[in-house]
Amino acid sequence: MDYQNFFKTALDDLRSQGNYRVFANLERHCGAFPNATARGMETADVTIWCSNDYLGMGQHPSVLAAMHEAIDRCGAGAGGTRNISGTTHDHVLLEAELADLHGKEDALLFTSGYVSNWAALGTLGSRIPDCVILSDALNHASMIEGIRHSRAERLVWKHNDLVDLEAKLAALPLERPKLIAFESVYSMDGDIAPIREICDLADKYNAMTYLDEVHAVGLYGPRGGGIAEREGLMDRITVIEGTLGKAFGVVGGYISASTELCDFVRSFASGFIFTTALPPAVAAGAAASIRHLKNSNAEREMHQAKVAEVREKLSAVGIPHADNPSHIIPVMVGDPHKCKFISDKLLEEFGIYIQPINYPTVPKGTERLRITPSPVHSANDIDRLVGALEDLWGQCQLARMPLAAQ
Amino acid sequence: MDYQNFFKTALDDLRSQGNYRVFANLERHCGAFPNATARGMETADVTIWCSNDYLGMGQHPSVLAAMHEAIDRCGAGAGGTRNISGTTHDHVLLEAELADLHGKEDALLFTSGYVSNWAALGTLGSRIPDCVILSDALNHASMIEGIRHSRAERLVWKHNDLVDLEAKLAALPLERPKLIAFESVYSMDGDIAPIREICDLADKYNAMTYLDEVHAVGLYGPRGGGIAEREGLMDRITVIEGTLGKAFGVVGGYISASTELCDFVRSFASGFIFTTALPPAVAAGAAASIRHLKNSNAEREMHQAKVAEVREKLSAVGIPHADNPSHIIPVMVGDPHKCKFISDKLLEEFGIYIQPINYPTVPKGTERLRITPSPVHSANDIDRLVGALEDLWGQCQLARMPLAAQ
Repeated sequence: MDYQNFFKTALDDLRSQGNYRVFANLERHCGAFPNATARGMETADVTIWCSNDYLGMGQHPSVLAAMHEAIDRCGAGAGGTRNISGTTHDHVLLEAELADLHGKEDALLFTSGYVSNWAALGTLGSRIPDCVILSDALNHASMIEGIRHSRAERLVWKHNDLVDLEAKLAALPLERPKLIAFESVYSMDGDIAPIREICDLADKYNAMTYLDEVHAVGLYGPRGGGIAEREGLMDRITVIEGTLGKAFGVVGGYISASTELCDFVRSFASGFIFTTALPPAVAAGAAASIRHLKNSNAEREMHQAKVAEVREKLSAVGIPHADNPSHIIPVMVGDPHKCKFISDKLLEEFGIYIQPINYPTVPKGTERLRITPSPVHSANDIDRLVGALEDLWGQCQLARMPLAAQ
Repeated sequence: MDYQNFFKTALDDLRSQGNYRVFANLERHCGAFPNATARGMETADVTIWCSNDYLGMGQHPSVLAAMHEAIDRCGAGAGGTRNISGTTHDHVLLEAELADLHGKEDALLFTSGYVSNWAALGTLGSRIPDCVILSDALNHASMIEGIRHSRAERLVWKHNDLVDLEAKLAALPLERPKLIAFESVYSMDGDIAPIREICDLADKYNAMTYLDEVHAVGLYGPRGGGIAEREGLMDRITVIEGTLGKAFGVVGGYISASTELCDFVRSFASGFIFTTALPPAVAAGAAASIRHLKNSNAEREMHQAKVAEVREKLSAVGIPHADNPSHIIPVMVGDPHKCKFISDKLLEEFGIYIQPINYPTVPKGTERLRITPSPVHSANDIDRLVGALEDLWGQCQLARMPLAAQ
């Protein structure tokens, strides 16, 4: 086999399908989010409209101060796995902060949200004898890979469809171990799961529940515990999984659950055991971010206000955007080439950066611009965004809609 | 099923086998490595003897300065995946630094060394049609999981055994895609692979080579490129995988290879695509560390000198340690309970922290203390270590050896 030629051909195929990804080389300006410098292109000053640092916590003085302090106190990295010299007091404090956030007995930190899903689902699915995992059809790649890795039986239920979920649960023996895996806010469509009803079904059929709240922690609930906190349902979920890399503005992932469940995953998950711990400064920064958002609603209120303002202004000029109950605004394009074209034009002509979302992040035919307003976007930023989209919609002769799409 | 009871029983089993892990809660003192504060125990001041921050770069002023500067310049986290707003100039510069370190066309950064192995081997193994992966029997968990995840055919060859590897290669059709996956320095035994001979076999049988250098980068070779650099073999390896979390002192992992191979993994690896990018400060700190170690041999020379001094002093008092050509000194105990006991005594009575290495990190019956000397250990630290071990060997009536064990 000619390996190089194989790689080249595969990449050429991606290009011809419009799915080849070009990473923008950006640098956000600390203290002046969402402004950034883009390198390698004519338009150097850009406004970022697709960050998952949803609240701008990545520039919050408390977060930065905690990171600086930890670096000066105990250095750059952790120096080992959690078991072999890599557990610092900052890790311990962060796990306590997370357990408290979700009202659980314990929490377990991973190097990323991806790894937390992959390792936790992989471990539960493979180690619990005869476990079957009931997985929402739109679950994130990290959950799918974790379930696949576990080699447990997987039953995929229709997205957010309680009837289908119940049919699948009812068909299983009551005594057989089961885990219902789903998300609260789905990243690409922004819709929200019926958590209470899923918990009711879990109780009825003796299933555990595994809820991914990565697009909700920090953003919803009186202390930022997520949708389950807002709905008063945290105690009914077996495992709440979250990230420190989106609303909390740093990096890392976690699960929170009972002491025994966390200890079980801690003790058996290869992806937890055999990897260097996060730097203490990352743990300290994340803990500072969580603490701040437990006590401050200002960011959440401002966030929701900005989201409403963007939706309203898009609707006013007929830019089609999917209606949903969350903070994620998908402007549907439906073609990878057009999606990339609009994104390129936004950047080149208007200094607005919104990465095109193409396959495999979303199914083919549902390519979109995914807009994430934040408290750091000004009214002027919003007007410039809407004006630019209006202009491009005209230039590209794209359809307008009087009402939201989907 | 009673889930809680299941978890509890599994943990009790671990405890009764002596394999339950208790994490020490530590805090290294920046500027005074290897000294640390241990919390939750009487002995608060400890000397760490099992860190994988092999050179103490985690406290190097250039590394810390780069991290501080990046935090102030562009904030705490990256704010998105590499594709969606998370590629900063710091990531781009780091990948260029890594490609240069290994004399390769390109490099690709991952959130950890674990993820780099898992994602790269998983992607190559699953995406190259009919690929067979020839895996050394002692490969790291992250490689094993990546290969398992790929569902490619796996042939495990006897550890470092060229005859067995050749027999397995020769039995495969020449045209069939093959990847030989192995490490340079094996973490727990400290032995080193015959890289040149493996490359010769790869050439003869048209196989790609995948070399994990996580315990070698920064430490070996005139610029810290690893064992392959030291042996002048970097250009013969298809993929060199490394970490930023051990000798470079920060966190993160990478592969370096041809432009097409890196682009292929970048484009298809779920574990690369669907995860938040490392914080820019982590990338900046790692790049500073690599740059420093490219230009300075002082740390490497001091490291080797300290390793030799520890070996010599252990041998002088008959503490059995496995002989090997690397910097890793395994003091073999061979029983999980005894191993934990000695480790506990070292900590409680002598303020010396060496985590016991038990199953599943090493096979049952080969439990050990894994000592990692570094340039930051003083002659006095070494004398205290050897004295403490001598004392405990007496207390515990453990066998002494005039020569190295194994």
